Amino acid sequence: MDLDYVPTAQPVSRLIDEFHKLPGIGPKTAQRLTYYLIRMPDEEARSLAEAIIAVRDRIILCSICQNITDSDPCSICRSDKRNRAQICIVAEPLDILPLERTGSYKGLYHVLHGVISPADGIGPDELKMRELLERLKGDEVKEVILATNPNLEGEATAMYIQKLIGPLGIKVTRLARGLPFGADLEYADEVTLTRALENRQEI
Amino acid sequence: MDLDYVPTAQPVSRLIDEFHKLPGIGPKTAQRLTYYLIRMPDEEARSLAEAIIAVRDRIILCSICQNITDSDPCSICRSDKRNRAQICIVAEPLDILPLERTGSYKGLYHVLHGVISPADGIGPDELKMRELLERLKGDEVKEVILATNPNLEGEATAMYIQKLIGPLGIKVTRLARGLPFGADLEYADEVTLTRALENRQEI
Repeated sequence: MDLDYVPTAQPVSRLIDEFHKLPGIGPKTAQRLTYYLIRMPDEEARSLAEAIIAVRDRIILCSICQNITDSDPCSICRSDKRNRAQICIVAEPLDILPLERTGSYKGLYHVLHGVISPADGIGPDELKMRELLERLKGDEVKEVILATNPNLEGEATAMYIQKLIGPLGIKVTRLARGLPFGADLEYADEVTLTRALENRQEI
Repeated sequence: MDLDYVPTAQPVSRLIDEFHKLPGIGPKTAQRLTYYLIRMPDEEARSLAEAIIAVRDRIILCSICQNITDSDPCSICRSDKRNRAQICIVAEPLDILPLERTGSYKGLYHVLHGVISPADGIGPDELKMRELLERLKGDEVKEVILATNPNLEGEATAMYIQKLIGPLGIKVTRLARGLPFGADLEYADEVTLTRALENRQEI
């Protein structure tokens, strides 16, 4: 972004540039954030900078589940309250948050750090597949729950893992498809409705 | 924001919290930015942190126009290409950028750092009014252009300054009101249209 034509002090245009590099932050938002940072209390602004450094210095991947953590193994893999017979496979660390918020899953996780996407040059080797297979050796794990996103790449990744794990004799399930809570039938798309019909349950 | 219930490493939840404090950054965006920062190249992430520190360490207010700057006086006040007889008064440093982009204003600026807003406890004493009056001593300045926003607080601030400067015998103007370029008459609001009628010009 060329801000040289506006008479902005160099540290200001630099920070605008840096904010602008972040996803979803346009030039206007980058400007607003920068001016906000200039005027916020000094310790708060420095605290943000320190938090960025801390996240870079202290965050590693859990050697078991590959989730981001500041201690290895991570708190979930370390916990004796989790069911070690279940592994839920997610694409990204962020996907663990909503699952944990439900409070209804007590197993472990495995983070792939992406999905298979030939268009972006991402195959199984770019994901944490080898680490997953390593965990499935022995007979501790009884069920693998596929929780990749219900879209093209997510489905392809789930299919790949299913084929990979199938021969191991471990139960493979995936999150149910159907109408989301609070949905309006009138506005449901055909794929969702088809899945909801296919998976209809007796009450 | 309470993120303790999700098993996120402390540096991660801290950075999410810090991003969430910024204006217009909700909890979801804060999460996305944080995970993006964790995965971006190390030097880029650190560069953002350094840019924040640099802006805090090196940005000061210009002793003449009160704009933010890394050198005092700022590049505009220092320039010998600017018309020192005109001062354009703006509420915020950000307001200078669009005016400079027009390329058609060659005078100086004065940044008030806010507008009069009794509801927020901001009166003239909280703004850079004294510094403005100081600049109007002597007879160098021939015109003061009021460029506060065309809203309630902006108008009140403009009125206040007009009354303040009136006795000094300096010409006081304000940015024209009318239809913006590319506007659609059908959708113009009444206030804008009333101003456009009042200020109609012979062609």
